Amino acid sequence: MPVPKTPLCTVDAIIELVDHPHTLAHPHEPAFVLIERRHPPLGWAIPGGFVDIGESLAHAAAREALEETSLSVEIREQLFSYSRPDRDPRGHTISTVFIGRAHGQPKAADDAKNVRVFTEQTLPPLAFDHAQILADYFEFRRSGRRPPADR
Amino acid sequence: MPVPKTPLCTVDAIIELVDHPHTLAHPHEPAFVLIERRHPPLGWAIPGGFVDIGESLAHAAAREALEETSLSVEIREQLFSYSRPDRDPRGHTISTVFIGRAHGQPKAADDAKNVRVFTEQTLPPLAFDHAQILADYFEFRRSGRRPPADR
Repeated sequence: MPVPKTPLCTVDAIIELVDHPHTLAHPHEPAFVLIERRHPPLGWAIPGGFVDIGESLAHAAAREALEETSLSVEIREQLFSYSRPDRDPRGHTISTVFIGRAHGQPKAADDAKNVRVFTEQTLPPLAFDHAQILADYFEFRRSGRRPPADR
Repeated sequence: MPVPKTPLCTVDAIIELVDHPHTLAHPHEPAFVLIERRHPPLGWAIPGGFVDIGESLAHAAAREALEETSLSVEIREQLFSYSRPDRDPRGHTISTVFIGRAHGQPKAADDAKNVRVFTEQTLPPLAFDHAQILADYFEFRRSGRRPPADR
């Protein structure tokens, strides 16, 4: 069989900081980590990247999170896989989004130019469809409901 | 940026038959459709296939379901994305699994050599990791819980 051409597989990890002061004060709205991208599309984004052949999605999510934020992340839950063809200006990529937890303070590395801790009330402008993904994450945190099938 | 190499994207659709006698008698354990594969790996499987560049995962799931079972499927829910590197003997593929609904009787076409209606009590031997996926689906139907992050 010739190798089919499909969209590329990526992952993103929403990293909740369990011992951050905001999380300790508001356990149901944990503080989380975003990175400022070094390469286009520029802007703030959920840490993540391309999946390597031979690694699981959860493994890729933990690896990319570590590479970009220097945090050792415990991947806890798969939220959803996003696939709209126009979600990434570089071409059609599918992102499977995970929710994870980490201790301590992030430090930017690799493809991240900058890293910062945010809450639902302090969101910056976001690249890709990451504003939609975070809105879905906040809804999931509140209600346990995942997004409709076609996102 | 050179195009990264990632695993290939596939979808599978668990098609519940809403007007099948078993479903009408047991609404919480609907009858669903499996296909017998025409190409290796042989065996029974959830209908599905490779995602085309430019279509969403949910679109691919409905398209593949129609091509293989001749059923018009309403895709209702995204269950989970499966990614263990050894899940597909042809190479590393990731499958995003959807749950959908259809009316009427399936008819085998395209890559499906045969198509048949099954229930949890009548499962045949399955290709890929589809026995695990269906076990996760039955658990989801019962409890609303999705699989652990690393499947």
